[in-house]
Amino acid sequence: MKYHKNPDETIRRLPVYLRGLLVLSEQGRENISSRDLAELVSVNPWQIRKDFSYFGDFGTPGVGYDIKKLVKQISRILRIDVVHKAALVGVGNLGSAVLAYPGFKIYGFDIVAAFDNEPKKIGRKIGDVTIEDVSKIQGLRRRCISLGIITVPGDTAQQTADALVKAGIKGILNFSPCYISVPKKVKVITIDIAIDLARLPYYMPTR
Amino acid sequence: MKYHKNPDETIRRLPVYLRGLLVLSEQGRENISSRDLAELVSVNPWQIRKDFSYFGDFGTPGVGYDIKKLVKQISRILRIDVVHKAALVGVGNLGSAVLAYPGFKIYGFDIVAAFDNEPKKIGRKIGDVTIEDVSKIQGLRRRCISLGIITVPGDTAQQTADALVKAGIKGILNFSPCYISVPKKVKVITIDIAIDLARLPYYMPTR
Repeated sequence: MKYHKNPDETIRRLPVYLRGLLVLSEQGRENISSRDLAELVSVNPWQIRKDFSYFGDFGTPGVGYDIKKLVKQISRILRIDVVHKAALVGVGNLGSAVLAYPGFKIYGFDIVAAFDNEPKKIGRKIGDVTIEDVSKIQGLRRRCISLGIITVPGDTAQQTADALVKAGIKGILNFSPCYISVPKKVKVITIDIAIDLARLPYYMPTR
Repeated sequence: MKYHKNPDETIRRLPVYLRGLLVLSEQGRENISSRDLAELVSVNPWQIRKDFSYFGDFGTPGVGYDIKKLVKQISRILRIDVVHKAALVGVGNLGSAVLAYPGFKIYGFDIVAAFDNEPKKIGRKIGDVTIEDVSKIQGLRRRCISLGIITVPGDTAQQTADALVKAGIKGILNFSPCYISVPKKVKVITIDIAIDLARLPYYMPTR
């Protein structure tokens, strides 16, 4: 296991802070203390201060954090201050939900291509995206798309990942219920949409 | 903000360990070192040992962790060693995907009820679950269902949460792209299916 300079756990929390800050920014707020940000995103205040300390000193004592500035700084650290184009494979229920989900745009992601292997879906439009035949995946290289989103069933997840890697994809968000393996140069993040439910009973009052 | 005895971050990681351990268990593995478990789930080995230390000493030096025993211990800590019944509200693309997702059963969750407000969907079956009219939510109290899953669009998320709380729901998994507010006695976990994509570019090779 290779360790990056900044702890993975910190990188995992930065988008959580970012989402909270974006909500505040929309509400017209300009500053926030680490304590209030902590309350909003359910992370300890000392943890927030420690996470930010890896990247320099962001706050001003007594004033707190400048929300707009902090949004910019976090976006730059995460390299989402530029728009990333993404392609999605598997336009079933989950794929359609992901395509329609407003959250990706917020973080600077633009899902510009979608693929499926069902003939009757090819050519259909979801939002601005026209569904293409999965055999066309290899064309992604020419289209400057470096991110892939896998929403196919588990049994075809690995072959989908292989095709995406062959098409030059550098990062994969895997929603399929399987672990997939890829070359070291490609980063995969596997999402388990059930996993957050697993910590809910811990916090629920017992009768 | 109230602090629980065990850090929220630890509770957040326990399901991640559990998922890895369940995969190993399925493969017939009996023991694993904290180092190998760390590699599998992408968490530092010292972090794993520290997390487990809150609950007593789980491993044996030189042998590692007994996988079956550890699965039981984590499940008991998270209180998912018993089956929890859940109700889902909003059977659109995301709701249908959640209903069909195999992952919930793995953690001991059984989605036994689904509600929607579209007349043409009422009575339709997804898997074993028959879609009911959303006006029937109040009946959940009699059916011993204590968990709610919200997959409605953002603009109806709050009223759905209110109805679930009124029906006696104690925990809510919120997939809608909005923060919702509930009484203190109810625990809400809001899922942003886009948030994991936000840390992908950080790990991708730059050209």
